[in-house]
Amino acid sequence: MHTDVTKSEDLFVHEDGFAFAGKHLLFDCWNASNLDNLELIENTLRDAIKATGATLLHIHLHHFTPNGGVSGVAVLAESHISIHTWPEREYAALDVFMCGGTKPELALPIFKKAFETNNIDVSEHMRGRLLTDMTPSSKASPCNS
Amino acid sequence: MHTDVTKSEDLFVHEDGFAFAGKHLLFDCWNASNLDNLELIENTLRDAIKATGATLLHIHLHHFTPNGGVSGVAVLAESHISIHTWPEREYAALDVFMCGGTKPELALPIFKKAFETNNIDVSEHMRGRLLTDMTPSSKASPCNS
Repeated sequence: MHTDVTKSEDLFVHEDGFAFAGKHLLFDCWNASNLDNLELIENTLRDAIKATGATLLHIHLHHFTPNGGVSGVAVLAESHISIHTWPEREYAALDVFMCGGTKPELALPIFKKAFETNNIDVSEHMRGRLLTDMTPSSKASPCNS
Repeated sequence: MHTDVTKSEDLFVHEDGFAFAGKHLLFDCWNASNLDNLELIENTLRDAIKATGATLLHIHLHHFTPNGGVSGVAVLAESHISIHTWPEREYAALDVFMCGGTKPELALPIFKKAFETNNIDVSEHMRGRLLTDMTPSSKASPCNS
């Protein structure tokens, strides 16, 4: 059964007449360095989480052998960050999905510095976008830790 | 130092004159059920991994209280799957990023069945897309477990 939500319980983001679950940024990093450095990559994810104002719940990284590529995910109170690296291509694919009052775009300078590149393409996707006149119902969202 | 890669060492996907790291599908699920069911969601991620031909390395789910929303990630030999649910909106955001010979689009019927909805928007993003005449270099990629 649904009950009407109060304003404070609706954790969808409201902007320009729309509500949405969160911003999902895809980062394609080219000419990138340090893509086989597991410790640097973990520190980079942690730095990005701090910079964006998010809260870390769980982090896991996997170092592929013998190639040196890394896959990593961080589960956040506000959604997630992931990274997958192809050192042989000097390429890394990251995504930062955040709801609530965080600022996922502030991860960009962290990634530029860590991977020593200015060649990063970013695309932004508003997940769960709907008109604000659609009625939300009860309870809270995954933005609540 | 880079050495030329042999065909078998280049794990970028080749298609229609382009190479790319992998397909990244974003699923926006509306009118969805079971979004607070942690066990069903974990089983759904595992079923999607099997259906797409991927290999699970690590899985982690977080159940938010008291709201019932779930965030989960699965790290794969071929990249990752993530899910974030907002039961109060009957909305879930999933993404399936896979490289190699997997078929991420085969996750769609799994999600439709699990969340009892046909209302799923899918957008596809070719990550790391480049012309195939750009020379890859040595070593393998995160698609190697």
